[in-house]
Amino acid sequence: MKKAVLIILVLMAKTTFSQKADADLSATIIALEKAALDKWNQGDPSGYLDLSADDVTYFDPLTEHRLDGLEALKKYYEPIKGKLVDSKYQMFHPKVIATTNMAVLTFNLNSYEGDKVYKWNCTEVYRLEPNGQWKIVQTHWSFIKPL
Amino acid sequence: MKKAVLIILVLMAKTTFSQKADADLSATIIALEKAALDKWNQGDPSGYLDLSADDVTYFDPLTEHRLDGLEALKKYYEPIKGKLVDSKYQMFHPKVIATTNMAVLTFNLNSYEGDKVYKWNCTEVYRLEPNGQWKIVQTHWSFIKPL
Repeated sequence: MKKAVLIILVLMAKTTFSQKADADLSATIIALEKAALDKWNQGDPSGYLDLSADDVTYFDPLTEHRLDGLEALKKYYEPIKGKLVDSKYQMFHPKVIATTNMAVLTFNLNSYEGDKVYKWNCTEVYRLEPNGQWKIVQTHWSFIKPL
Repeated sequence: MKKAVLIILVLMAKTTFSQKADADLSATIIALEKAALDKWNQGDPSGYLDLSADDVTYFDPLTEHRLDGLEALKKYYEPIKGKLVDSKYQMFHPKVIATTNMAVLTFNLNSYEGDKVYKWNCTEVYRLEPNGQWKIVQTHWSFIKPL
């Protein structure tokens, strides 16, 4: 009986640890995303550029096709610098599904420019790099019900 | 000198093995996706449903917000069954970025229904399940330049 109780306690401790680790990782990933979004909404794409891996792939509703690589993303964001000033956003239901070295964050987002509201779906795939940093390897922004 | 040559040979062998493993995994993931797409284009969503994990998250241009979970996806796909018959698709530049247990596939796609062409961005995040099967945990379909 004692052994059974011990096994149950160990399993409970493991589950609790695992849930805590999951919750910690989710919080870390969501905080990285929000920090980049905060900069973006002040006209500064550097948060996203710093957070993206060299081999990042990228979609948004304005691209003709997938952009491949950080250099392509830098070039694409260059004309946007300083265009947004003090715009606001609301993130809804962020959710992280993760394995040890990769995590996918999804959320819906409203962004506000003056009276205009844009409604978004967003997918961000993060990879744990050898230096211990999480970097984005895939970004996909799209409009909710655009047609 | 001999030791240096040996180290170089081992590194080269490791790199070749790793490239081969990467190429094999990419081919596996792309084949899974194409098999599901083939069924989809015959009006059969079962390929995607069988390939999706219980905790799948899902975006497409018609959803009001993210769908969470396989049951929600089944319900969403139910009215679509049998609607597409013999439609065609072309997949462009599929690319897989992977770690041991998670892989993100991205591609552009044209789908054809009669004279109509729809142009898509697609992200599929696959996770290696304990039973050795790769399952989708995140799907994101969006239209290219919808506005």
